[in-house]
Amino acid sequence: MADGLGRSPVPDDFAPPPAADDLARWAADDAAARPGRLDRLRERFERHDVQAYFGVRRENTRYLTGFVLGEGEEKVAGHSGQFLVGRDEVVVVVDSRYTIQADREATGARIENIGYDLPGAWRRLVESLGATRVAVEAGFVSHALWRRLDAAAPDVELVPVEGWVEQDRAIKIDAELARVAAACAVADRALAALLPEIRPGVTERELALRLEWLLRTGGAEAVAFEPTCLAGAQAALPHGSPGDLPVEAGRVLLFDFGAQVAGYRSDMTRTLFVGEPSERDRGVYEVVAAAQRAAIATLEAVVGGELEVPSGRDLDRVARGVIEADARWPAYGHGLGHGIGLATHEGPSLSRSASEEPLPSPTVFSVEPGIYIENETGVRIEDLVLFDAGAGRVERLTQFPRDVLVVGG
Amino acid sequence: MADGLGRSPVPDDFAPPPAADDLARWAADDAAARPGRLDRLRERFERHDVQAYFGVRRENTRYLTGFVLGEGEEKVAGHSGQFLVGRDEVVVVVDSRYTIQADREATGARIENIGYDLPGAWRRLVESLGATRVAVEAGFVSHALWRRLDAAAPDVELVPVEGWVEQDRAIKIDAELARVAAACAVADRALAALLPEIRPGVTERELALRLEWLLRTGGAEAVAFEPTCLAGAQAALPHGSPGDLPVEAGRVLLFDFGAQVAGYRSDMTRTLFVGEPSERDRGVYEVVAAAQRAAIATLEAVVGGELEVPSGRDLDRVARGVIEADARWPAYGHGLGHGIGLATHEGPSLSRSASEEPLPSPTVFSVEPGIYIENETGVRIEDLVLFDAGAGRVERLTQFPRDVLVVGG
Repeated sequence: MADGLGRSPVPDDFAPPPAADDLARWAADDAAARPGRLDRLRERFERHDVQAYFGVRRENTRYLTGFVLGEGEEKVAGHSGQFLVGRDEVVVVVDSRYTIQADREATGARIENIGYDLPGAWRRLVESLGATRVAVEAGFVSHALWRRLDAAAPDVELVPVEGWVEQDRAIKIDAELARVAAACAVADRALAALLPEIRPGVTERELALRLEWLLRTGGAEAVAFEPTCLAGAQAALPHGSPGDLPVEAGRVLLFDFGAQVAGYRSDMTRTLFVGEPSERDRGVYEVVAAAQRAAIATLEAVVGGELEVPSGRDLDRVARGVIEADARWPAYGHGLGHGIGLATHEGPSLSRSASEEPLPSPTVFSVEPGIYIENETGVRIEDLVLFDAGAGRVERLTQFPRDVLVVGG
Repeated sequence: MADGLGRSPVPDDFAPPPAADDLARWAADDAAARPGRLDRLRERFERHDVQAYFGVRRENTRYLTGFVLGEGEEKVAGHSGQFLVGRDEVVVVVDSRYTIQADREATGARIENIGYDLPGAWRRLVESLGATRVAVEAGFVSHALWRRLDAAAPDVELVPVEGWVEQDRAIKIDAELARVAAACAVADRALAALLPEIRPGVTERELALRLEWLLRTGGAEAVAFEPTCLAGAQAALPHGSPGDLPVEAGRVLLFDFGAQVAGYRSDMTRTLFVGEPSERDRGVYEVVAAAQRAAIATLEAVVGGELEVPSGRDLDRVARGVIEADARWPAYGHGLGHGIGLATHEGPSLSRSASEEPLPSPTVFSVEPGIYIENETGVRIEDLVLFDAGAGRVERLTQFPRDVLVVGG
């Protein structure tokens, strides 16, 4: 029973899926934002003495050009969707399979059908942009492609860069935050719809698949990642996969999942109790919930003017400190959270090794502390939090209750 | 009406999904095959004067070590699943999220929890294998990681290599071919189950999602890729995505999709007719079907002893030649086909730029000629074909009929 509501949540407790006019408005807002995004990227050109940027990451292609590849599609798309940003022009390269789509979607770009041979076209493309030094997305360009481009035009210098577009993507416009919020609501509704189907005997895999179906038919164009459902001791695996294990009374049941709405994603984790929780499991849950509250309270204190904007490392320390101070169970080995948007994991990072710079904003990230006791139990609670220091705004976009919730009873 | 059967296919025309003992047998066969796979990889060491191989591709991790990452999971797994094969030992690196899973799955390997910092552990790992020159999977290691590893141990030489494991993966054991066949049957059954639901007015997206559901509840542990459903002129997009376009009578309806069974994948395309096809569309279909038959007949002639084993380039030329000889419509811009297994697209390749070496075998690949008429119509027919020159075996694993099939009438 969720004590906030006095009852278990139902789908209509949460916002409805986006309507056609929401989608059209977001698409228009994206198109309007693209020139500014290109400008921000180009502002780096002079400082690094480059005249072009070569990118291959599908999220960056979409962000800067509008051309959409589905998750994983880049693995079979050859060079399609890879792009060059020059000082005055954007080039999207494709093979014959993608020319029609690129013409439709990458409306501000020059579309070049280069077939399957980017190195063969490289010199001509770079020269057409008047570039002699090209910044290259080194975290995503394979070393083999790097070598081939380098050999194709030895007088064109390749400059390895990382995080340029990713840094910009961490700071989001309203139309991006609205889509993450919409994806959160789709996920909230789906889990609420699943609750009555949870009972002892049903397997992790059945519940995960059912949850995916509820997401996909409830407003998600895709899942953010394969939904995870882990029962009992399996919940101690922070990245386990659902198997044929049946749900058991008296044990935890962990769901980690997200929706995608118009390209933008959500990510949430709830650890439910099937029947009355053991004292130990309830204790673990309360400590994790307290750790999460402490991190979010820190952000609230920031917008209340009581604190400076913390770094991702600071926030991780706050939540981790709550678990370590309790000292009964080990704190999570992973990070406290991650930014989210076109990718499930993006900047800013909240972890022990994250930047010590103040968090960027407006942004959105997960806050997901956990405690894992191998072969026994695991609890993680994950919400997405919108943070806008300038506007004094901290908002949990995940609205599904996070109190102890007993199901399957 | 499918003329081979005299009626539309139904799910039970095809093999049932695999049973638990099939899965157990395949897992045992994989484990038994792993030492031989490692030996084949190591046979290259001396020739290239390296003492270790560093890999990051998830399919190669599974193939060589047994450690399983889901599709796309490598994007959020940090270094987890990356591996080193030394002369006597295999190391799988993980962070804390994956230690338990790796212990379970990568039974023959040394599991090293290196957190999120592979460069920091690189020197120690390489020295533990006694290596001074390391072959690196250059097509999948990012240029940025390459630079960091190089800087972490400048005296350890990194040698860029491509296709070593992929070349071995193209040649498959029975347990691999059996899983591809099982994935084909799951897909055949799902499309047969979908047929009665196809009618004018239902959208591409609805049918694609429904097909995915039938796959996922019909024996597939995952889809090989997001199912595609393209109606009418959309079928001219060889890699289009399903949208809100409704199915129309008198037009084509193209499905391209696949299942995954115990890690192995299928891929099939069928172009159906909603109501009576136009003369043009039927003509296009017959030419595509003839092109596909010609390619498969070539393989049959090989195992009949009439022809030498062709190259992937030869087979593409055969099918393409049929469409070009007809000369009414343009031949496909893509390749004729691709190998398939742990990845949807792997070796061998069948295309205009494919190797001119004889096809490897035993292997399995798609044969998927098409004709695309922009803004008008498109037809592609894709089957998976098992080819084993040594055993004199050519077999269509996709058993769904490929005759003109009228639906929604």
